[in-house]
Amino acid sequence: MTEQQDPPETAPRLLWRKQSTGEVDAALMAFMAGDDIVLDRKLFVHDIAASRVHAAGLASIGILSKEELGAIEQSLDALDRAYAEGDFTLDARYEDGHSAIEDWLTEHLGELGQKIHTGRSRNDQVLVASRLYLRAALDEVHSLCTELARICLRRADADMLTPMPGYTHLQRAVVSSLGLWFAGFAEAFIDDAVLTRDTRRWIDANPLGTAAGYGVSLPLDRALSTRLLEFDRLQINPIYAQNSRGRFELQALTALSQVLMDLRRLSWDLSLFAAAEFDFLQLPDRYTTGSSIMPNKRNPDPIELLRAAPAPVLGAMTELQSVLSLPSGYQRDLQNTKGPMVRGVSAGLQALRISVGLIADVEFDRERMAAAISPDMYATDHAYELVAEGMPFRQAYREAAAMTGDAGPRDPVASLKRRTSPGAPGQPLLDQLQTRLSALEDAANSP
Amino acid sequence: MTEQQDPPETAPRLLWRKQSTGEVDAALMAFMAGDDIVLDRKLFVHDIAASRVHAAGLASIGILSKEELGAIEQSLDALDRAYAEGDFTLDARYEDGHSAIEDWLTEHLGELGQKIHTGRSRNDQVLVASRLYLRAALDEVHSLCTELARICLRRADADMLTPMPGYTHLQRAVVSSLGLWFAGFAEAFIDDAVLTRDTRRWIDANPLGTAAGYGVSLPLDRALSTRLLEFDRLQINPIYAQNSRGRFELQALTALSQVLMDLRRLSWDLSLFAAAEFDFLQLPDRYTTGSSIMPNKRNPDPIELLRAAPAPVLGAMTELQSVLSLPSGYQRDLQNTKGPMVRGVSAGLQALRISVGLIADVEFDRERMAAAISPDMYATDHAYELVAEGMPFRQAYREAAAMTGDAGPRDPVASLKRRTSPGAPGQPLLDQLQTRLSALEDAANSP
Amino acid sequence: MTEQQDPPETAPRLLWRKQSTGEVDAALMAFMAGDDIVLDRKLFVHDIAASRVHAAGLASIGILSKEELGAIEQSLDALDRAYAEGDFTLDARYEDGHSAIEDWLTEHLGELGQKIHTGRSRNDQVLVASRLYLRAALDEVHSLCTELARICLRRADADMLTPMPGYTHLQRAVVSSLGLWFAGFAEAFIDDAVLTRDTRRWIDANPLGTAAGYGVSLPLDRALSTRLLEFDRLQINPIYAQNSRGRFELQALTALSQVLMDLRRLSWDLSLFAAAEFDFLQLPDRYTTGSSIMPNKRNPDPIELLRAAPAPVLGAMTELQSVLSLPSGYQRDLQNTKGPMVRGVSAGLQALRISVGLIADVEFDRERMAAAISPDMYATDHAYELVAEGMPFRQAYREAAAMTGDAGPRDPVASLKRRTSPGAPGQPLLDQLQTRLSALEDAANSP
Amino acid sequence: MTEQQDPPETAPRLLWRKQSTGEVDAALMAFMAGDDIVLDRKLFVHDIAASRVHAAGLASIGILSKEELGAIEQSLDALDRAYAEGDFTLDARYEDGHSAIEDWLTEHLGELGQKIHTGRSRNDQVLVASRLYLRAALDEVHSLCTELARICLRRADADMLTPMPGYTHLQRAVVSSLGLWFAGFAEAFIDDAVLTRDTRRWIDANPLGTAAGYGVSLPLDRALSTRLLEFDRLQINPIYAQNSRGRFELQALTALSQVLMDLRRLSWDLSLFAAAEFDFLQLPDRYTTGSSIMPNKRNPDPIELLRAAPAPVLGAMTELQSVLSLPSGYQRDLQNTKGPMVRGVSAGLQALRISVGLIADVEFDRERMAAAISPDMYATDHAYELVAEGMPFRQAYREAAAMTGDAGPRDPVASLKRRTSPGAPGQPLLDQLQTRLSALEDAANSP
Repeated sequence: MTEQQDPPETAPRLLWRKQSTGEVDAALMAFMAGDDIVLDRKLFVHDIAASRVHAAGLASIGILSKEELGAIEQSLDALDRAYAEGDFTLDARYEDGHSAIEDWLTEHLGELGQKIHTGRSRNDQVLVASRLYLRAALDEVHSLCTELARICLRRADADMLTPMPGYTHLQRAVVSSLGLWFAGFAEAFIDDAVLTRDTRRWIDANPLGTAAGYGVSLPLDRALSTRLLEFDRLQINPIYAQNSRGRFELQALTALSQVLMDLRRLSWDLSLFAAAEFDFLQLPDRYTTGSSIMPNKRNPDPIELLRAAPAPVLGAMTELQSVLSLPSGYQRDLQNTKGPMVRGVSAGLQALRISVGLIADVEFDRERMAAAISPDMYATDHAYELVAEGMPFRQAYREAAAMTGDAGPRDPVASLKRRTSPGAPGQPLLDQLQTRLSALEDAANSP
Repeated sequence: MTEQQDPPETAPRLLWRKQSTGEVDAALMAFMAGDDIVLDRKLFVHDIAASRVHAAGLASIGILSKEELGAIEQSLDALDRAYAEGDFTLDARYEDGHSAIEDWLTEHLGELGQKIHTGRSRNDQVLVASRLYLRAALDEVHSLCTELARICLRRADADMLTPMPGYTHLQRAVVSSLGLWFAGFAEAFIDDAVLTRDTRRWIDANPLGTAAGYGVSLPLDRALSTRLLEFDRLQINPIYAQNSRGRFELQALTALSQVLMDLRRLSWDLSLFAAAEFDFLQLPDRYTTGSSIMPNKRNPDPIELLRAAPAPVLGAMTELQSVLSLPSGYQRDLQNTKGPMVRGVSAGLQALRISVGLIADVEFDRERMAAAISPDMYATDHAYELVAEGMPFRQAYREAAAMTGDAGPRDPVASLKRRTSPGAPGQPLLDQLQTRLSALEDAANSP
Repeated sequence: MTEQQDPPETAPRLLWRKQSTGEVDAALMAFMAGDDIVLDRKLFVHDIAASRVHAAGLASIGILSKEELGAIEQSLDALDRAYAEGDFTLDARYEDGHSAIEDWLTEHLGELGQKIHTGRSRNDQVLVASRLYLRAALDEVHSLCTELARICLRRADADMLTPMPGYTHLQRAVVSSLGLWFAGFAEAFIDDAVLTRDTRRWIDANPLGTAAGYGVSLPLDRALSTRLLEFDRLQINPIYAQNSRGRFELQALTALSQVLMDLRRLSWDLSLFAAAEFDFLQLPDRYTTGSSIMPNKRNPDPIELLRAAPAPVLGAMTELQSVLSLPSGYQRDLQNTKGPMVRGVSAGLQALRISVGLIADVEFDRERMAAAISPDMYATDHAYELVAEGMPFRQAYREAAAMTGDAGPRDPVASLKRRTSPGAPGQPLLDQLQTRLSALEDAANSP
Repeated sequence: MTEQQDPPETAPRLLWRKQSTGEVDAALMAFMAGDDIVLDRKLFVHDIAASRVHAAGLASIGILSKEELGAIEQSLDALDRAYAEGDFTLDARYEDGHSAIEDWLTEHLGELGQKIHTGRSRNDQVLVASRLYLRAALDEVHSLCTELARICLRRADADMLTPMPGYTHLQRAVVSSLGLWFAGFAEAFIDDAVLTRDTRRWIDANPLGTAAGYGVSLPLDRALSTRLLEFDRLQINPIYAQNSRGRFELQALTALSQVLMDLRRLSWDLSLFAAAEFDFLQLPDRYTTGSSIMPNKRNPDPIELLRAAPAPVLGAMTELQSVLSLPSGYQRDLQNTKGPMVRGVSAGLQALRISVGLIADVEFDRERMAAAISPDMYATDHAYELVAEGMPFRQAYREAAAMTGDAGPRDPVASLKRRTSPGAPGQPLLDQLQTRLSALEDAANSP
């Protein structure tokens, strides 16, 4: 089959290449490299940052002099800038991002550059870079969750008594409100923020200094690197550091998938509300697209794409799980945890970012929603009136069932106000949700 | 095909059956019931406990008198005892466990029993029972994780300088130690305990009082039920309470799956160590079985079954995820979250319980492990000696690679002692692991 | 936590137990047994059938005399009858169904019974029984698919010109017809039948006679057992026979999942059509249930449960995949392929059986569907009229888009009739679908 | 977080853009576009081919004149060449590949180009291109399977009596042979080729001409396009054509995953054989890599990467399944089936291609394998000798178990030769495997 695929044009320099290695088969090399170098672009700034800290640690135990450290730090800063400004491209000239850093230093600092890999392995190097990447990703997820919660709470407050049918089994059940619907998602996104924060803390352990899984014969200053990289704790055991590869990634994606599954449910609702049969929604033009064949169509594509947003993350999780059935210690299989991590995070974040504007902007047709409330939806109200008069519930239920239809139209707002169980429209406890949310926001903003 | 399957012998009583319903098709009924009644056996004690608290809440707002509450509490206690002692069987006579409770009360207390369903729905009833079930399950998982961590730490301490080959790529890499191996799993199980505790707290929200997803027209005392059922917080919004069904279950199973994946890795190691080619393991007889055809075989079946233990939990997670693509509000699809929850939890817990004894009892052949350490495994040591003499690492690496073979046998224990990077055998920091573990145990034991 | 779980009351007899084994820990035994004996109930008739054939094979190479074979056949027939009539129960007295058969024979035939296991292992015994079970399951799936296709085709024919809105993005797009909707599912179920048939043939290979994965020192008559058990071919290599465990199960469940995913889509449609906002559906009472709290509700539960039906099968597939990352040869992990196989097949078949009646019985509200067709849905028709007059399509598209609204009401049936592209309502080619279906039915009915 | 991501530099031209659309938000556009344009590079040649055939169909029913058809064909041929030679780049200037084709034609042919979209939609356009892509992919998978089977058969023949331990539970069980191991994988790959062929035929249905899921008001010549595109059959129903999106992709990936799971098992074996403890393998240098920290290591990375190869395919399958819970008709969610299709196919094919050389080249250490055969592995042989003397098997089993150790060394080749059950080393039936393989190869090569 015809595939257009860019093979590495020049063979990368291989750190471990010894005299005897000889010719390496190109297709085999391409297979082994995978899209590693492209994925490493996402990790590169973190790899540089961790390399800087690793050098500081080497200086702290006397492997590097103060001057040597200064030179390395300057050189790494230069690389960081060059990368940010597009003057340095991470491409197939390098085996991976790790080698690129050592190459840069050796090229610019000569023999001194050959010291940077002292006391570390690419194994702990990729671990620490991945962890910093995941931590930054979870920070953004957390921030997006609190932002979504804030928007939903605001809209919940504005429309707590705006009638809307409440559905179970997609059947009209009782009078509900637009505000109650928004408040439900506010609470969901608050829980998601908590989950994200817990997950961030769970993975916030420093693997730098565990080398290839068995430590090294140097008294590395791992406390220093933990502090400088702002890790919550040291990941102590080097075998465990290796064994945590993939499973920390999995847990981070799990948190993200939970957020996206809430977003999916929200999108399902919007998708139905946007159907002509419901017609509850007024979607700003920029959230709709046309059809290439049917001139009359305006389609709510972003809503549908948000509904599909958990898919790449769930797929990435399966990919990770499929790799992780292995004995202890590094195995090359684990290289294949990088792809699902990066693709899952990127796809999930993109969807979350988009959802903010959509949820803030979407408008509802209050009249259409009110018109969708039919008299039989007051049957439960009627049953509870009988209960209030002292009738046992089960009897009141049968009574109300029998007289359905006779109840006649009622005032939906009055019905909502009488719904006083805590959390219901008559007593929605939005302040309690706001308190939880504020605590999360405060904690995120404190150093 | 021939299937032996027990259909309900007597039609269950249906709470919602009205006069007009007429004949219900038996196969259809069986399909709708599924194995719900069997699954409810796991939830029944929790359902009774929550019913007791629900009654207290009704009394608190004047729906039940003090005497009525007393009668209901006594009757529920009697049901609890009858169930525990096998005098009450939850079977196909009932539509589900929820109906069984109402039936029991109505049978024993007459009209009063018909009041128990006031202000609640089976929707919040199953939510609260499931949550109590998951909470209890996570408590047991947490306790098993700390127990496993304790055993591994003890064994790590005993064998920190017992040489064992350290592998990467299943290739012998450097000298490692049995204690380092155990310490790695100790840290893993500590992380698992933290994850389990965080997850328990995340799901520890009270859904009782949200009814069918829209609240009720009664000022239910949800603060009381939250306190009596020892929930961490109120799950406020009734729509969210419904929407959290399945996703809380999923998160609980995720925590369990992480523990089991650590156990899988440990089992992979043991399985290899038990092979004649490694022969590092002495497995007590009770952990081996015979073959039906080969008289010479002693097979480490429990190890292999532990390796397979994540499978039913991962399967249950897929099952849950497959159900959860739905609009807001209860849909009957969600009934199918109960099966994977119960099956996943039961299978996972059984495996975890078994693993405790295995990990405590398994013995290692120190001589065989020592014999497996070959001279080339000291090459990294040699490189680091050159580094200590001031040679840049990359140069030392090439030097050491060139002279491999000449290095000659060395003392593995001395090599381990010189491995002084924090976490490595020369400085394993077991006390720091112990500190984390003790904090978890203390928190679990405090009220 | 309180769990009600039945441990085996009497220790099963263990085929491989030698003098030296000693005490076996009860919890460990329960863990190793799992629910194997319950699952074996589904396989038992197949295990007996294969044992009968195995005995015939032993007679064919002189291991059993004609009389011995006769005695064994009689005894196995008696077991088959006893099992069918409930006089023999497969329970925790036995280690598994395989042992139960040998036990039965030894009990009834003395030393002769000890010969049945000659030339076989439990490994090929479970392989052959599983395969016969899967084959029977796929036969039933195939038959249900053709039945579903037949019903859909009949209904497609009856309502090919009954107008119904055609949706894309859940938006009304163009006029479609109820018959076109049914024809779509007819074609889906025909494809499913083909897939099921192909899958059945793919797994239809005889593993009996491969023993524990390396064959035996006897010239077993495997051609005879292949013929007697009506296998399509011999599964030749004994290592492959072991390695195919789980993956054949996976493929069978894959076929089943495809059918159920079609059913899910159909259920999604019905679920929407049943909503008050669409109101296209008239669901017979027996397909609806009530609510325990809302007297007014009639819920389409079976539809929702059908929508959830792929979940246990997809879960079982994940469970299988999670187990299968293993080296060659039997590992005990593979025992855990039996549970997902049996549970996936049972759940999937039950849902499929129910769906037949539902799809045959469901009625549609023709007036409501017609009323849902709005003037803008003729815009594409208008564009094609301009194309017919010679205007390039893209220009006609813009023209039609501009004048939307002006088009005015049209006759939907006329519009359907003009839709003459092959497969569309004006030329639905139902006869071609019928031809494919008949060929499948004929092939299934021929010997 | 810092992400380097290339936004579309120039806004793509939008086919459906009408006057009123106004400004489209850039981030939203990027979200909606996803990496569609990059993925379309894989489909582009197929899209061009199908467009050529679509034009022929339009000419056949008089929408295009003979001259117009000629002009379009020439222009499409030119595009095909330009694309192959890199003179035409499919990039963010275009909304997608479909638009790029129409744009090209309009640019080169003026008003005539605007006719190409007559009677089709992007919906059937992407369906037909995807199907041609999958068909070509499955052809390559089939060809690789037969090649792998051929290599394995050849090696099986060469080493059928080369002794190698046969393992169950990773324990040495009986004498096996290298040839038996290879023959097992030969049969696996033959089955995979059959599965691939069946799957190819299953998806080989022509969706072109179904437009947006409801057909069009033109008597399209779909029989012609079916013939010209060499489809096995017409996919008749337009609603089904839409509903088959994703599920055909899923089935193609399923076939691929089965091949890769066989490869995973083979890689597991090789990975163990490559461990120093087994040391059965001699891996050519080009299949090993070095370590960045341990100078002594030569790691079998390609083997490990092959072991991980099912992961991206299984992940892609989950991604597809997660999208497919939808009502009938096109929903934008389905766009997200393209990514997993292309990524799963690309990753899977790359791994398969690499495996051919590896399996052909890998060498085994016959002496080490022979040395690994211990006397107890003859116990089953001994039992069968007693059976041959007339002892019932179960008794012989106990006898052999008791005397294990006494048996003394035997000749492994003699043991293999006596293993005469069909498929075992004494009667491996390689000719039957060869016959199946040749039939597959012949069928693939016939037109």
